[in-house]
Amino acid sequence: MPDPRYDELVRRLKEASLLESVNELLNWDLESYMPPKGACLRADQLGLVAALAHQKATDPRVGELLSGLEGSELVKDPGSCEAVVIREARRDYDKRTRLPASLVAELAKTAALARQDWAQARKDSDFSKFLPSLERVVALARQKAAAYGTFAEPYDALLDDYEPGTTSAELTQVFSSLRVELSDLLARVGASSHKPDPSVLEGDYAVGLQKVFAESVASAMGFDFRAGRLDVTIHPFCTGIGPGDTRILTRYNPRRLNEGLFGVMHEAGHALYEMGLDKERWFGTPMGMPASVGLHESQSRMWENLVGRSKSFWRYFFPQAQRLFRSALGDVSLDAFHAAINEAKPSHIRIEADEVSYNLHILLRFELERALLSGDLEPADIPMEWNARFKKYLGLEVRRDSEGCLQDIHWAAALFGYFPTYTLGNLYAAQLFEKARQDLPGLDAAFTNGSFAQLRDWLHSNVHRHGRRYHAARLCERLTGRPLSHRPLMDYLTAKCAETYKL
Amino acid sequence: MPDPRYDELVRRLKEASLLESVNELLNWDLESYMPPKGACLRADQLGLVAALAHQKATDPRVGELLSGLEGSELVKDPGSCEAVVIREARRDYDKRTRLPASLVAELAKTAALARQDWAQARKDSDFSKFLPSLERVVALARQKAAAYGTFAEPYDALLDDYEPGTTSAELTQVFSSLRVELSDLLARVGASSHKPDPSVLEGDYAVGLQKVFAESVASAMGFDFRAGRLDVTIHPFCTGIGPGDTRILTRYNPRRLNEGLFGVMHEAGHALYEMGLDKERWFGTPMGMPASVGLHESQSRMWENLVGRSKSFWRYFFPQAQRLFRSALGDVSLDAFHAAINEAKPSHIRIEADEVSYNLHILLRFELERALLSGDLEPADIPMEWNARFKKYLGLEVRRDSEGCLQDIHWAAALFGYFPTYTLGNLYAAQLFEKARQDLPGLDAAFTNGSFAQLRDWLHSNVHRHGRRYHAARLCERLTGRPLSHRPLMDYLTAKCAETYKL
Repeated sequence: MPDPRYDELVRRLKEASLLESVNELLNWDLESYMPPKGACLRADQLGLVAALAHQKATDPRVGELLSGLEGSELVKDPGSCEAVVIREARRDYDKRTRLPASLVAELAKTAALARQDWAQARKDSDFSKFLPSLERVVALARQKAAAYGTFAEPYDALLDDYEPGTTSAELTQVFSSLRVELSDLLARVGASSHKPDPSVLEGDYAVGLQKVFAESVASAMGFDFRAGRLDVTIHPFCTGIGPGDTRILTRYNPRRLNEGLFGVMHEAGHALYEMGLDKERWFGTPMGMPASVGLHESQSRMWENLVGRSKSFWRYFFPQAQRLFRSALGDVSLDAFHAAINEAKPSHIRIEADEVSYNLHILLRFELERALLSGDLEPADIPMEWNARFKKYLGLEVRRDSEGCLQDIHWAAALFGYFPTYTLGNLYAAQLFEKARQDLPGLDAAFTNGSFAQLRDWLHSNVHRHGRRYHAARLCERLTGRPLSHRPLMDYLTAKCAETYKL
Repeated sequence: MPDPRYDELVRRLKEASLLESVNELLNWDLESYMPPKGACLRADQLGLVAALAHQKATDPRVGELLSGLEGSELVKDPGSCEAVVIREARRDYDKRTRLPASLVAELAKTAALARQDWAQARKDSDFSKFLPSLERVVALARQKAAAYGTFAEPYDALLDDYEPGTTSAELTQVFSSLRVELSDLLARVGASSHKPDPSVLEGDYAVGLQKVFAESVASAMGFDFRAGRLDVTIHPFCTGIGPGDTRILTRYNPRRLNEGLFGVMHEAGHALYEMGLDKERWFGTPMGMPASVGLHESQSRMWENLVGRSKSFWRYFFPQAQRLFRSALGDVSLDAFHAAINEAKPSHIRIEADEVSYNLHILLRFELERALLSGDLEPADIPMEWNARFKKYLGLEVRRDSEGCLQDIHWAAALFGYFPTYTLGNLYAAQLFEKARQDLPGLDAAFTNGSFAQLRDWLHSNVHRHGRRYHAARLCERLTGRPLSHRPLMDYLTAKCAETYKL
């Protein structure tokens, strides 16, 4: 039976979300079409709208409504949509109201300055220029963790912003097995005398044709161009602005197909999650929101890697690619192309890493940032620790901090707890995909015919439509019948390397 | 000496303007890049942001601050920027707070429904389908005029929204002389045996090249592409989002150059006004806002017509156009082209009208809507009155209401008082341009050399940088030494027709 307090709660949540959706659009425009001289105005607009959204989301009236509803009939069945909305709205409200406004403002200001110092330090490959800023950011991040309250360790409080309900102890359990097996696999790959030839990927790829190709792949995946767009930017991303409006920004390299294409597939994977949420009904409430950053990343990585680097996908798309890019691919065989896009070779830069070594980059960062937050590691010791672990995990010497601990913006932006979501994405992707293949025996054959609807619909029913009903780990366990494990990812990567490197 | 009340006033005005600037961007995106399924979300975003902006602009605290400041040192010199800000902020505050929220909401809702009825009625060319809506809109518009309070007649209250300080009595004085002389000029043009050949304008104009050409013209005018953009839409417009961000939307006809080009020149004229306001310093306050809709239109019409249809402009640009559009213009002479773009020939549709007959379309609408507001004309009698005056002023029979009184959206959108700004734009343009030519004797020679900086700088110093310091009529009189008159426009049109039609 209807409860007017619930309706008021939903109305208030939606207003806050509507303002956040306005900022999504402002930010999309900032990264795509805004003229350069509009930057100051845009910063003012984003700041004001964010403040108004925060004000609406933390209005004491929301707290009153929640307190009333938590004792009402609506939460009797904890599996009802209303109970999920109330439970998750409480989560958000408590987290948001626990942070003092002064701390939020100081973090924003300190991070803005830290980003400048970081950019300069990276340019000069001089960690000492970033250290004072990093120390300030870490100190504030620890204050933030403390403000959030009861967590087993400071890091968990921050991780919880991106992966609700997940702890670093849980991560460590999965990650440590993963690290050992990945290093072992990389060593075997390195020892193989059978190597793919990456030079077959170089050639002339007209950007206009790359866009046509990428759009046809995105359409085949199920990206609805009447409810979304694909444009060009410097730092690719996907933004789910709201119902009927999900946008991808990507970039193209005129000498290589794979950066633009896999970038679009990655972002289109994110977009399918956004498009698959039932926003028509639940926009602005937790039932219309993604469950976690890691689960979101699992959708992008599944399409980018498990689908996009599979032989069956290219059985269908390679002839099309050859027709569009005749001079580059006309004389390349499917097998040579497929091997080249699956090359596994350690390198220094995370965002250029292959599927196998990528996770080692992440595990290293997770270990360091967790230790920073606990106080076990001093910021000043980061380069030494980074380089030692890099050598141990990836087998490479770090020659300059710019290709080491200064390469990523995350710490300068105070994004502690974010890095693990990349590897969680790969882990969830593999475990969910393994299950999808069990449920859908004809999947490979369908890919070979250019049909991806089965997988998309399976993800829609089993992942997207649940919104935040289950936290990511719980959803994974419910769906696959077991807790998150490194096994599916390792099985997938091992089989892939066995084929590519004849192990 | 600084007054903290003034600083608070400015801060509050800027916040309201910042939210309005967000809506400008949302609206720009709606008309350019938004995917079609995003329409509902966009309506919700625009509605919420508009409500928040209105709330900030009408906050009682603004009224308190104004009351305090109106007795302060800051208004001692009524010519100071601060005094202008206070005077005009009071104007806006009073107008906005005088409208009851219920009336604003009912007008918005009624107009939304009226637009649907109007669209259907126009499609079917059946005025009776629009009449009930029109009656409701007129009744509400009269309520709105009454709420605004003391004006000589209801129409003046609405006109004042677009042309602060201008009355319909003043307009009538200028417009009636204009009407008689325009009808007379059109009759002489119609009787001439010497006619331009409009068919020279037809040909193949690749849209991509039209864009290149339009951008080079806009650049020459002084449009700063680092502080603005040019994109494609269905209904062209210009939006001055804020400092450093002014955007033009236009459309191209692949068979005719002039629609896209003059459209861009028109909107770029608007854009130069927006770019010329001192928004870096005054954004969000009346000193950083345009003086009136009619004065804004004068800037667009000056560039579109007085510059863009001049012989000296084309002496410079025609050879370029010929190189870009060889098949269409290769065999056309400058004189034939120039005559064709200056053809004066009455037709039924306002937005397709030439420079001479255009104003007769407006004068007719002004007379009818003024009578609607005073109650002298019943909405039911609109078609009869429209057709009779159309025959009298433009010499044409109206065969269908779709090409008569149903052609424009304005009345359905409750925009009473807006139409006169089009003719005011033409009048101000001619009077200001006449003065610019006196002040800048080398202007024609400069145009012939592709240099438009003199005119732009003159407009910047004499018009743009004043913001709302002077109401439009006052600015015109101060600058040209006499009140607004139909004389400069008639002199300009008469000379133009004398050349084109050998009168």
